[in-house]
Amino acid sequence: MSTERNSPAGGTARDRTPNAARRSEASRRAILTAAFDLVGEVGYARLSIEGIAARAGVGKQTIYRWWPSKGAVLFDAVLMLAQDPGGGTAALPDTGDLAADLGLVLRATVDEFADPRFSEPLRALSTEIAHDPALARSYAERLDGPLREAKKDRLRSAQRVGDLPEDLDLDLAVDLIWGPLTARWLHRTGPLTHAFADALVAAALDGLRGAAAPGRDGTGRRE
Amino acid sequence: MSTERNSPAGGTARDRTPNAARRSEASRRAILTAAFDLVGEVGYARLSIEGIAARAGVGKQTIYRWWPSKGAVLFDAVLMLAQDPGGGTAALPDTGDLAADLGLVLRATVDEFADPRFSEPLRALSTEIAHDPALARSYAERLDGPLREAKKDRLRSAQRVGDLPEDLDLDLAVDLIWGPLTARWLHRTGPLTHAFADALVAAALDGLRGAAAPGRDGTGRRE
Repeated sequence: MSTERNSPAGGTARDRTPNAARRSEASRRAILTAAFDLVGEVGYARLSIEGIAARAGVGKQTIYRWWPSKGAVLFDAVLMLAQDPGGGTAALPDTGDLAADLGLVLRATVDEFADPRFSEPLRALSTEIAHDPALARSYAERLDGPLREAKKDRLRSAQRVGDLPEDLDLDLAVDLIWGPLTARWLHRTGPLTHAFADALVAAALDGLRGAAAPGRDGTGRRE
Repeated sequence: MSTERNSPAGGTARDRTPNAARRSEASRRAILTAAFDLVGEVGYARLSIEGIAARAGVGKQTIYRWWPSKGAVLFDAVLMLAQDPGGGTAALPDTGDLAADLGLVLRATVDEFADPRFSEPLRALSTEIAHDPALARSYAERLDGPLREAKKDRLRSAQRVGDLPEDLDLDLAVDLIWGPLTARWLHRTGPLTHAFADALVAAALDGLRGAAAPGRDGTGRRE
């Protein structure tokens, strides 16, 4: 599943016998699940490797063998949850109605942010990233990158049917749709509701449909 | 300047003689400046009350008398910087050209985020807020609230000259313009450039100009 240096899959030759690999993968999943559950219960400040080990039923050394810090454990825990069972990133819904599909996705995110079991680990990861450029690079590569590609794929599909301009800056588009939600959640500056998700999608899409025009050289949008 | 319980202005009767008040205010500013400078140099994790006291040339007890934690000191330091000398919040530029005015403001923010002297304290405050609902409330009231009002004032001015729809959700508008910048900065998910600021303003304004239409009951925009 993972080819990271510290992961079980990259362990010693002894670990690579089928049974040992299965046991390693089971331990790994138990540790990540324990980390995710614990941070939702006690908060990141009180999360400890000891606590994770006790909850997962493994020794501390098993955790330290694979991860350098509690932040690294939590990162892999969030990564595991963001991936589908095959280890890939789930595609966004594509019914042909872009606003409806994005509305569904953003409403689901609003619901996740409202649930401490999800929002507490994500908040912890988010603040670790803010202070740790190395973790931020890892996040950008392994978590934000694949998620962002999935988002862009949905936007590209909209471009193909003429629902978004062909020359749209897709990174700007992703930021315009998802950034306000992230910012409001992190800074707690306003209510996170389904109505906000819907209004955000409507305003962002209006902006993206018009956004390509002003900077262009007068050729207009192609149909 | 401040009427907070822990601030010098709210001190004992003895402190209220003019000279003592001046000395208190001087100490307060020295402490806040020291906190702001230090966090930019050593990072929030290594910021300590002891270090702030040494840099400001005051005793630790002076700091503890006014603030409960280093997070609270830093919050007031950022607040001091966000206010003009009279203690108010500076208005946004209003030349009549909304896109140009917002472009100036967002480019200035991009420059601030690129400067560790500003971005490190802001990042520290931002993550404290993410984990501390009480500090988040204080932030929403004393810092984000006044800044948000200044932003809304500029948008209201645009509404008065017919440059933005009258029935715009101004909180959504502020989030759509500033949220993507905040999110990209905090999560380090893309380059923060003047070009990004300009593209963001263009896309957000297009969105806001069109955003009121779909949900309306067919009365159209009033001139």
